[in-house]
Amino acid sequence: MTGIVVRNIARAPLAVIDGLGRCGVSTVHEAQGRTGLLGAHLRPIYGGARIAGSAVTISAPPGDNWMVHVAIEQLQEGDIIVLAPQSPCTDGYFGDLLATSAQAHGCRGLVIDAGVRDVRDLTAMGFPVWSKAVHAQGTVKATLGSVNVPVVCAGALVRPGDVIVADDDGVCVVPREDASEALEKARAREAAEEDKRRRLAAGELGLDLYGMRDRLAAMGLRYV
Amino acid sequence: MTGIVVRNIARAPLAVIDGLGRCGVSTVHEAQGRTGLLGAHLRPIYGGARIAGSAVTISAPPGDNWMVHVAIEQLQEGDIIVLAPQSPCTDGYFGDLLATSAQAHGCRGLVIDAGVRDVRDLTAMGFPVWSKAVHAQGTVKATLGSVNVPVVCAGALVRPGDVIVADDDGVCVVPREDASEALEKARAREAAEEDKRRRLAAGELGLDLYGMRDRLAAMGLRYV
Amino acid sequence: MTGIVVRNIARAPLAVIDGLGRCGVSTVHEAQGRTGLLGAHLRPIYGGARIAGSAVTISAPPGDNWMVHVAIEQLQEGDIIVLAPQSPCTDGYFGDLLATSAQAHGCRGLVIDAGVRDVRDLTAMGFPVWSKAVHAQGTVKATLGSVNVPVVCAGALVRPGDVIVADDDGVCVVPREDASEALEKARAREAAEEDKRRRLAAGELGLDLYGMRDRLAAMGLRYV
Amino acid sequence: MTGIVVRNIARAPLAVIDGLGRCGVSTVHEAQGRTGLLGAHLRPIYGGARIAGSAVTISAPPGDNWMVHVAIEQLQEGDIIVLAPQSPCTDGYFGDLLATSAQAHGCRGLVIDAGVRDVRDLTAMGFPVWSKAVHAQGTVKATLGSVNVPVVCAGALVRPGDVIVADDDGVCVVPREDASEALEKARAREAAEEDKRRRLAAGELGLDLYGMRDRLAAMGLRYV
Amino acid sequence: MTGIVVRNIARAPLAVIDGLGRCGVSTVHEAQGRTGLLGAHLRPIYGGARIAGSAVTISAPPGDNWMVHVAIEQLQEGDIIVLAPQSPCTDGYFGDLLATSAQAHGCRGLVIDAGVRDVRDLTAMGFPVWSKAVHAQGTVKATLGSVNVPVVCAGALVRPGDVIVADDDGVCVVPREDASEALEKARAREAAEEDKRRRLAAGELGLDLYGMRDRLAAMGLRYV
Amino acid sequence: MTGIVVRNIARAPLAVIDGLGRCGVSTVHEAQGRTGLLGAHLRPIYGGARIAGSAVTISAPPGDNWMVHVAIEQLQEGDIIVLAPQSPCTDGYFGDLLATSAQAHGCRGLVIDAGVRDVRDLTAMGFPVWSKAVHAQGTVKATLGSVNVPVVCAGALVRPGDVIVADDDGVCVVPREDASEALEKARAREAAEEDKRRRLAAGELGLDLYGMRDRLAAMGLRYV
Repeated sequence: MTGIVVRNIARAPLAVIDGLGRCGVSTVHEAQGRTGLLGAHLRPIYGGARIAGSAVTISAPPGDNWMVHVAIEQLQEGDIIVLAPQSPCTDGYFGDLLATSAQAHGCRGLVIDAGVRDVRDLTAMGFPVWSKAVHAQGTVKATLGSVNVPVVCAGALVRPGDVIVADDDGVCVVPREDASEALEKARAREAAEEDKRRRLAAGELGLDLYGMRDRLAAMGLRYV
Repeated sequence: MTGIVVRNIARAPLAVIDGLGRCGVSTVHEAQGRTGLLGAHLRPIYGGARIAGSAVTISAPPGDNWMVHVAIEQLQEGDIIVLAPQSPCTDGYFGDLLATSAQAHGCRGLVIDAGVRDVRDLTAMGFPVWSKAVHAQGTVKATLGSVNVPVVCAGALVRPGDVIVADDDGVCVVPREDASEALEKARAREAAEEDKRRRLAAGELGLDLYGMRDRLAAMGLRYV
Repeated sequence: MTGIVVRNIARAPLAVIDGLGRCGVSTVHEAQGRTGLLGAHLRPIYGGARIAGSAVTISAPPGDNWMVHVAIEQLQEGDIIVLAPQSPCTDGYFGDLLATSAQAHGCRGLVIDAGVRDVRDLTAMGFPVWSKAVHAQGTVKATLGSVNVPVVCAGALVRPGDVIVADDDGVCVVPREDASEALEKARAREAAEEDKRRRLAAGELGLDLYGMRDRLAAMGLRYV
Repeated sequence: MTGIVVRNIARAPLAVIDGLGRCGVSTVHEAQGRTGLLGAHLRPIYGGARIAGSAVTISAPPGDNWMVHVAIEQLQEGDIIVLAPQSPCTDGYFGDLLATSAQAHGCRGLVIDAGVRDVRDLTAMGFPVWSKAVHAQGTVKATLGSVNVPVVCAGALVRPGDVIVADDDGVCVVPREDASEALEKARAREAAEEDKRRRLAAGELGLDLYGMRDRLAAMGLRYV
Repeated sequence: MTGIVVRNIARAPLAVIDGLGRCGVSTVHEAQGRTGLLGAHLRPIYGGARIAGSAVTISAPPGDNWMVHVAIEQLQEGDIIVLAPQSPCTDGYFGDLLATSAQAHGCRGLVIDAGVRDVRDLTAMGFPVWSKAVHAQGTVKATLGSVNVPVVCAGALVRPGDVIVADDDGVCVVPREDASEALEKARAREAAEEDKRRRLAAGELGLDLYGMRDRLAAMGLRYV
Repeated sequence: MTGIVVRNIARAPLAVIDGLGRCGVSTVHEAQGRTGLLGAHLRPIYGGARIAGSAVTISAPPGDNWMVHVAIEQLQEGDIIVLAPQSPCTDGYFGDLLATSAQAHGCRGLVIDAGVRDVRDLTAMGFPVWSKAVHAQGTVKATLGSVNVPVVCAGALVRPGDVIVADDDGVCVVPREDASEALEKARAREAAEEDKRRRLAAGELGLDLYGMRDRLAAMGLRYV
């Protein structure tokens, strides 16, 4: 079942993708019912990046980055590479040469449940990566994997073409077919939060703003 | 034993608290006999913050941030929220809305043996957090916990009103009743270090400055 | 076998050391056949540092930093301290006073498979450290260790005088006697990468640049 | 998307399931192309158990075991409960009372990416569990999850009705529709191994048995 | 604050202690409101032991087991040693000689948030240990700690004389003054479970036994 | 530097090796000055085994077990295979077929800083393994490693022909040339312990047996 490259994958509209990117991970995660987060062990190599894109997925053998070259040919403007190793691995699958190549083909960043290297160069290039490790360990090119098949990456199912949102809070996946609805809900959430933020900043308590006092009392909360 | 909010807690004088904050975690930890550190897995969400404050404690069910709202009402100027989950958890209990509310009530920061989110906003607000994880995972409001009861947070006992010092080196708790003495010792330590720093910078060896050569020889150290 | 300080150790020429430092960890690791990396759990306390130097090694009892003082006397211009605890430990063996002293004796940085503290001061001083933890936990001076004996640090064998290269990608050790050859290979690798980078940036695919298509097809890669 | 119970799920034939169980995890994993393993952090609470069954899946809130009661009603003879928490959790979702109930409804065991308790009783009952932790921590019944929806459990996608195989080597999932083919391949593999085992036991070398010497030499292996 | 041995500590009555031991960790934890568990990383060195006793506590420097000798003199029949290192440590503080001595003074077992060794001998002696690690690493006798002071062990506060219950599910602490009440509640819980176990074994569903259906429906659970 | 097989390695005399095996890990570790332990994360797949043998070492690419076949040809009666992956890995390099082959060539067991599988069969065969993980994950045969070169395994340097001792307490390496002296010291230690064990069992305190009271008092220990 390995050794497959799927060439034509459906993607969400770029306008939807970019809208989700502006909302950010936490808002999108909430908007789709608290689902879709990849594991919190994926951390950005530098702070401040916030991206969204269509997933081009890689199922890679441990310590073997051959399929990254194969995946780069499948990239379109606005894509994000999502690499899941076939068994746990922290090797440095990806560095500045691959980033140069991926960036030339429209790639917005990398999400990898393994290691990355050349992070100084990647930072200078503005190529953001969310990874499990920074590790200079080199990899080989000896065994096939697959490109654009569904993968489980950092505990979440990611299918090719799903929307990936990534920022300082981590990484979230939105099923492609739910992207528009998720965007709508995320924007509604943002709008609702604006008023709350203003009132909380003015000193109003969440206990009052959200009307929590009665339910807390009913459940037995005691002030002593 | 849960479902309790203690309203009136004693706090150390702000002058003492602020003095401890200026000394920093490592000095205060040493000054009180190498005690009081919270676990090193608590890391700041951004570098350079150094704060001290009185602990308003939360014992929270895993994945349930209801009590944070309750705790915010108990805040006074100069407080720090200390949240200990009742079982290990990395969920994101706290984000920018809660930070806005806490800050409006005088809160200087958050120490949490769990996750935090909206870290980009928190950084922009200058609201420092020391946490076990950055994780967008949302929480529920379904089960009671307690506020201002003694908690074990990241391996250290923290009682409400104890002084919390936090900086890039981690987090330290000073029992409220020992705060003045700890400050005195910390300042003495700082004064003593000043002279040492100058002499070491000039090239004097610690072996000579601290008179270690004889004891090392007596214990059998051999130069070959 | 403990309680020994070796005074005269051979070092690689500074020109070679500095050359390796300019190449960086990932390139040097590849140049010597993908060997020499220390564990990826060693992380820099601040970003952007890139150093190389001769290892002055410390085998230290857990939670006991006495030997650091002993080691500092053995430092020469261009050295890096490499500390391996004799059993797993995250205590803060090293802070700003020791860094002041080490720096005064020509030390370029510290690699430690344990904890470090005063990281704000170390950052301000420009004294780089790669460590397993940032931890304010103080240590004692009660038990002997050794200085300038071979140690296993973060999973790699480091002998006194070996060349240490450290940057944002981690830490790599180059056996002293192989340093010149490693530098030569690293530079050749850098030169070869320059052309590749240019071509990849122009959109050429790695599949073509490296001539991978035939071998992938031969191994059965299928495009669907 | 949560709060759903799917009542009618398709299952593989019991004869196929039982055949897979007799082959065991490692053989089945190999037979389906080295896929399907759940994370190695899932360990059996006692040694020697080897089971296979149809997955009845639970997506559970962290620290909330309400859905286990709901799932038990959906059990049929030969099922295995597969519980994935919605965020990382080690709480003890399951103990001897739930095991008694599950066993009464035909359940063969539990696979849980969280904690379990009453392991002494479960061992005495012969109710096998593969879990991330043994932890007495109690849970609440406050929030809905779902039953018989696809879940990612310990890094693997498990759909309701998929075949679960579990033994001392860990846990493997076989997509329901591939179960017969996997069984066929697993049996072929077992048959082939029988002859190899006999020859290897007699002292024949794998180098000869598998004809590896030429390829090793061609790749440059040198004997010195 | 270190270097103290408290000689006279209050203990709970042995009848209460033994009663709690018979109830076991999970039941006692529930009986006292889901509190008191030590971290799940403490695991027994052999299966099947279930003990209870009065805590004789040790606050020990990392890698230094001197205080164990001091603590043994303070033991009485029915005590359990609880050792908390002053910073994280996995060294083997305790082996068969110390167990022989402790057993001779009435000790029922050891709970240690660090390492233990000679586990084959300890198993043969029937001296149960719950530890963070099995590690042969030897320790020194160079620095003072304290005996019978409050400690935080594996995340829980343990005061000298508190009741420790330990079995295959882990370790639980019961505050000495609450021991009788906890026993009463634990026994009530056991009695209540007996009837439930019988009914569940007969096939009755928890959904009916606990009357959950209405509340689940009210919260929106949907069967599809 | 990889792709090498060293054919003729020196070994310690079997009588010495077997003597060390009878002493066990903790005693041997102490006898050679508290050195030589491999990391405590290496755990036996079944309890009760205690072996010693000469190390036949393997430096293996991650997820590639080809070199195990090569190593088996180099085995002699009384050897132990020591496998160190070239980067962190938990894949199952070794199972019952390889064990059958290794056992047929005199191998006493396996020490592996990675995964193992077929543990039920290995247990039935009485082939002991100390590993970092039990993991069914299959490996490939695509890249060369080396056999009988020095390796760092689980944090310790192991050279081919060094003596490995392994039991329930973990794994210890004794440099081949020090084996006789280590055995002598280990036996002396065992003899000395016999008398101590008898006296401690009779109730004598370690404080008296080792004459610790004066030094404790001198260091300031206070009884309150």
